[in-house]
Order: sequence, then structure tokens, then C-alpha cells
Amino acid sequence: MELLKRRILTEGRVEGKDVVKVDSFLNHQMDVVLLNEIGKEFQSRFVNQTVTKILTIEASGIGVACITAQYFNVPVVFAKKMESRNLDKEVFESKVTSYTKGIEYGIKVSKRYLGPEDHVLIIDDFLANGQAIAGLRNIVKQAGAHLTGVGIVIEKSFQNGGKVIRDEGIHLESLAIIKEIENNKIIFKEEGRE
Amino acid sequence: MELLKRRILTEGRVEGKDVVKVDSFLNHQMDVVLLNEIGKEFQSRFVNQTVTKILTIEASGIGVACITAQYFNVPVVFAKKMESRNLDKEVFESKVTSYTKGIEYGIKVSKRYLGPEDHVLIIDDFLANGQAIAGLRNIVKQAGAHLTGVGIVIEKSFQNGGKVIRDEGIHLESLAIIKEIENNKIIFKEEGRE
Repeated sequence: MELLKRRILTEGRVEGKDVVKVDSFLNHQMDVVLLNEIGKEFQSRFVNQTVTKILTIEASGIGVACITAQYFNVPVVFAKKMESRNLDKEVFESKVTSYTKGIEYGIKVSKRYLGPEDHVLIIDDFLANGQAIAGLRNIVKQAGAHLTGVGIVIEKSFQNGGKVIRDEGIHLESLAIIKEIENNKIIFKEEGRE
Repeated sequence: MELLKRRILTEGRVEGKDVVKVDSFLNHQMDVVLLNEIGKEFQSRFVNQTVTKILTIEASGIGVACITAQYFNVPVVFAKKMESRNLDKEVFESKVTSYTKGIEYGIKVSKRYLGPEDHVLIIDDFLANGQAIAGLRNIVKQAGAHLTGVGIVIEKSFQNGGKVIRDEGIHLESLAIIKEIENNKIIFKEEGRE
């Protein structure tokens, strides 16, 4: 998705060897005009596939998931990261190790909002080691729901999350794939379709 | 907002004396069709007022803020709750005591995304004791930005957050105001405009 790649190149800030900060438009400040273009792109990449629910994880996945859901006409469910007095006791649970935060945490989805009748599109902002997606897939499996696919805004293909998902035959669409970061420069993977 | 009140009455679940769970459509599963109606309503309630940025707090405020931002054509900034290796060191900080979670936490907004030129509309899903809104207002003040107003989906007026904000002369719009919960029954405050 060229529009997205241009934004990453102009506004993305490289930190260290493997962190690209895009918090001016994606995960701290959010450009809803761009998010709408992202939503349309996800719609075109999963066209003619059954999606009854979009599943994401708090916090930065929620914005892109909600805007995208408008193009699929389905509700969003977001997995919660913390114990909350207000969360249902009846939940699907999984564990996630956060690469950027260096901690392990639990994620939970109420059993009320995911079940065997659901066809789930998982949406998230970043895919690196794939821990969050693995946790969400685990929850989809516990719910007995069908996983239609995974839509990612930015994948870092030099980390192995994307490979693991593709190797299992899951339909993964990443709108921008960063192949490497070399001397502070972001290098995208060329895609056949763009 | 009648549509919202009907959803609260049909799907809201009262827990204890003062908790109303609306996680089937607002803050765990999110009905983006309803969120769009909420966004339009906020637009009509803050019509002809300058808004350059919508500010909210993770996690459940993000969905309603992003959908609402489409009607104001402005970006969303969400305050982050946790220390993250990826967050800017240059941040505005405040402290919030969570009523539902029973903990105190810090919230942060990067100085890159809020400044004296901004006219800020704060959006959140719930207003009870007003701790989150107080933290966000504190950040708006630190940024030297102008606070245009506060838009809340559900206010519980038997807790004092709304009163504090109105007493200070701030333009507060709550789309549904729960006056009391009596014998498990939700009673809304009548509004002149509805």
C-alpha cells in the first residue's frame, strides 16, 4: 500500500536496530483519514471472504480495527490485557510476551462475544515476533471460531511472526512489509501486487 | 440520545450498586454502527466550535474517539497508561485513580502531538468520578492547549465527576446520563433537549 509506505518513510522514526516508531499517525496520534484508506485496503484484500467479527488487542489495534470494521459491517471485539473488576469471569484467556514492553501479560475475551458461529478477521497495527497474534489465534481456537485471516498494517519481516503464520497456511495480509532497517533506513519488501 | 439509552436498557447489565456493563456494544465488543451515530451526535453537540484534536485515553475510549474523529476531520491522540519502551521520553504526564480497577496509574501524551495551537475535544466512554477526565484535562493544560469541551457516552451522575466539570464552566456533553440505579433498574436523567 503505497500511501502507507510513503507515510512510514516520511514520518517513521527508527530507534535502535529494529524499532520503527509511527506514532504520529498510527499508534499514539491516529490519522483517521489514513485509517480509512487502510480499512478500504483490508476490505479489498479479504473481499468475498466471510467475516462476522473483527478481533484485535488493546490498545493501539482498536483504532484501526474500528475504522476497518465499517468496511466489513461487523462488530469489533478487543482482547483486554489487564485484570479488570468489570470484565466477565467467563473469558477465553491466553498469554502474550510483549517485545516492545519486555513483559508477559494475560489477554482475555469474554465468551459472550466470540463463538463457533464466528468467522474472525484478526487486525493489528504491528506484526514482529507475532506474540500478540499467537495469543489472539489461541483465543479464536478456544472459542471454536473460524479464523478467516489476519490483517496487519506494518509487518517487520526480519522478525519471524509473519513467517510462522504464513507457514501454517493462514491468510495473512500486511499492508507494508519492512524487510530490513539498514543504517537507520527503512527498506520495504517488494510485493507482487503493488 | 434515545438510540443509546435503548441499547443501555436492553443490553446493559447492572452489577452491584453502581456498575453498568455495556460491553456488548461499547467497551469490549464495539458496535461500529452505533459508534457512528454517537460520533454524529457529538458533532451536532459541538457544532461551530473549533476542534483541532480529539484526545482520549486507552483503551475503551479509542474506538469511540476514532469513529467520532471522522465527523470532525481531526486526528485522535490517546493517552497511554503504561510505561512503554517505545513511548517518547518527552511527554506530558498525569496521574489517574481508576474507580473500576482500584489502582492508580500514570497517563502520558507525547509533547509532539499536543501544543498551544490545539483546540481539544476530550472524548471518553464513561464518566463516573471523573479521574480519567481530570488527568486528560491536566495534560491539555500542561500543553497550553485550549479545551473546547468534553464528550462522554455514558455519565453516571450519582458520582460527582460530571458536576465538578460543569461547575468549572466546561462544556460537557454526555449522551446518556444515568441518574440512579434502583433495585437493579437503570434510571436516566431527563434532558431538556431530548
